[in-house]
Formats: sequence, structure tokens, C-alpha cells
Amino acid sequence: MHLNDIQKRVDKWIKQFEVGYWPPLSMFAALVEEVGELGREINSLEGHKPKKIADPETPKNILGLELADTLFSLVCIANHYDVNLESFLDRIFEKYSSRDGNRWTRKDFS
Amino acid sequence: MHLNDIQKRVDKWIKQFEVGYWPPLSMFAALVEEVGELGREINSLEGHKPKKIADPETPKNILGLELADTLFSLVCIANHYDVNLESFLDRIFEKYSSRDGNRWTRKDFS
Amino acid sequence: MHLNDIQKRVDKWIKQFEVGYWPPLSMFAALVEEVGELGREINSLEGHKPKKIADPETPKNILGLELADTLFSLVCIANHYDVNLESFLDRIFEKYSSRDGNRWTRKDFS
Amino acid sequence: MHLNDIQKRVDKWIKQFEVGYWPPLSMFAALVEEVGELGREINSLEGHKPKKIADPETPKNILGLELADTLFSLVCIANHYDVNLESFLDRIFEKYSSRDGNRWTRKDFS
Repeated sequence: MHLNDIQKRVDKWIKQFEVGYWPPLSMFAALVEEVGELGREINSLEGHKPKKIADPETPKNILGLELADTLFSLVCIANHYDVNLESFLDRIFEKYSSRDGNRWTRKDFS
Repeated sequence: MHLNDIQKRVDKWIKQFEVGYWPPLSMFAALVEEVGELGREINSLEGHKPKKIADPETPKNILGLELADTLFSLVCIANHYDVNLESFLDRIFEKYSSRDGNRWTRKDFS
Repeated sequence: MHLNDIQKRVDKWIKQFEVGYWPPLSMFAALVEEVGELGREINSLEGHKPKKIADPETPKNILGLELADTLFSLVCIANHYDVNLESFLDRIFEKYSSRDGNRWTRKDFS
Repeated sequence: MHLNDIQKRVDKWIKQFEVGYWPPLSMFAALVEEVGELGREINSLEGHKPKKIADPETPKNILGLELADTLFSLVCIANHYDVNLESFLDRIFEKYSSRDGNRWTRKDFS
């Protein structure tokens, strides 16, 4: 699915409800909540934090769901501000390419 | 661009460097750093925190770049764990649809 | 209780267990998890996110517990790195006083 | 310094300005910004992320300042909601003691 279509799908989903998009800082707090849950799952996968309860999902599936929850929250904020994520992602690749060209060692394919 | 292709593009970008993907908890800390910068921009746009320095970008562009930085960090974690974001996003839509069907008031189109 | 004594109390509590302090990036992910839960409670108190389940605690008490959970996680990181929080808090007050002296309008007591 | 006195000192500092405490969700976003900066410093100390610019402070001092910045932000939220952090910290110790008593292996002093 195109990233643009994902933004539209989220928009359609949100707009079926009267409440619509929350105020930006509320959406941001919701994003942080998802990021926190993602951190818990990574900690659990990396061996430091035992899980409290059994979960019928595999650890990788739980992680996948938390990543997608986080992505959904992020898209909501982008939609609210009418930000086209794909075009800014292009700019990020440009920024990283010029900034990090000399920060990391490139693999030697010679 | 398809979300799958974005994941591949990030993967190709990361793998050109010897260091490759960082350990998961380091990637998570980097994600949180981006989320923090996103919070600062939303606070600034919503009027509560004055900017310290002039920035040649418009506020909306700065926000777009922070959103894309955050998305990039998220995709890195997904790639490291070989998570297909699109398939989990489908599951999130299903989850929200069953969970939130009665939590929010639907618009009345009658 | 003195902040120094709080740091000691946390240290004593952690060191009773064989596992001791987690690696720093794990403690950081745990801190973010707490911050995310704090965000959920603030969103709930400010009216944007309905609570899923009834909780026997009052909303203010839930918030107080999340704030204290976050503080505990923060003190763990400080202790691991042998950071005296009080002395750095003094420096923060100095920094804010010189930086923000002209950023905000002072109340007029004349 | 007593934690109660730290809360009062922060309160006095904030109240000298007309703007006073920001709305809770703005204070929360500011907290997340500080947590993100803390994550960057931990990543830097743990060896994964190179620093972009030279800083006259030692790495441990930078970390201490980020921890104190985060604590300051946390105290602002507590103050706004009139939460006494020390009393809730007592409850956290009780909660952890009953919950984690069997979750971790205690050191054997026999």
C-alpha cells in the first residue's frame, strides 16, 4: 500500500467518528503512550524485563502490533497538519546522505 | 511509494555502512530522541513554547521533517526485527474497528 | 525526605536483587514506558481519552503513582551513573535563570 | 534538599513569570523533549551514537544535566496537579515490594 493511501485510510477511519482528530498535544501524548509500549516489548525481547502475563501472540507479533500502533499515531498527527509523509521522507534521505556521508564507514566493495 | 518499498529503501541505506543497524535498544533511544523533537515542534506550533533560534524552514516544514525522522527511526526497528509494517497495520485497523466501534460516536449520515 | 536519601533508598532496594541495575538503555526504555503511562493519564484527566476500565483509585492518585513511577525510573539511571541529582538541579536553576530571564515576562509586583 | 522543598522551589521559580505553568499536555510534551535528550546522551555514553559537536562539559556532566532537566519537567507536572511526590514514592516502594518480591532473585546473604 502506498504511504499516501495509508494516510488516506487513516483519515477515513478517523473521520467516521464525531470526535475526529484529537487536539495535537493529545495525539502527541497518545503517540508517546504507544512508543512506551514499544519500549516495553523491545526490553522484553532483548531479555531484560520479564513479562507479567502470558500473551497468546508470539513476541514478534506483539512487537509488530506495537510498531503499527505507533505508526498509526504518527500518521494521525501528520494528517492533522496536512503533512505528506512521503515527500518529507525524501528530504530526510537527502539530509542523512549529506550529513552522514562521512560520519560512518562505508562498506568496502572493492 | 509503497510502505514495503520504504522499508527496503531504509534497509539499503543502512546496509551501505559497516555499522549497519544499531542494537535494538539504541535504535529505540534514537526513536525517542526524534519523538522528543517532534513534541518540541508541536508545542511550538500550538503556541506554548517560543523558539530559541530563527529557522529558515516554515513551521510546517520543520514539523514534516520531524515526523519523517520519527518514521525513519520506526522503520529501522521494524526492519531489524524483520517486521512487515503493512501487514500489522491491517491488523491494527481490525483491532481498532472492533474495539472502538462503540467507544466513539459515529457521525450520523441519515 | 532528602533527594540524596531517595537516591540511597532506591539503591538499597535495587541492590537486594541479584539482577541489580539493568543496562542503561534498558533502564531508559523502562523510563519511556512510564512516561507513556503518564501521558495516558494526563490525556485522560484533560478529557480526550476515555478510560477503558474502572480503577479503584481516584484520577489524581493514578496520576501521582505514574509520576512517582517515572521518578523512580529516573533515579535508577542517575544512580547507575553515580549522578547526584541535587547538585545538577542547582545547575539547572542557574541555567534557566540566565537563559529565561528575558524569555518570559516577569510578574509586576510594583 | 527535601523533595517537598524542591517542589516548592520549582513552584516559586515558575510563579515569578506571568505565563506560569503551561497547560498539562504542553508540559508533558516538554518532558518528552527532555527524555529524548536524555536518550541521546545515554546512547552516546554507551557507544552507539557519535556526538556531532564538541561539548565543554564531560559526558557525565551532560548526562547529569539532562537528568535534572527531566526531573524539573516532572516536578512541574506534579506541582500543577498538586501532587506530593514523596507520598506517592512511598506507595511505589510498597507496590514494587509486594509485586516484585518473587519476580527477581534476592541476593543470598546466608
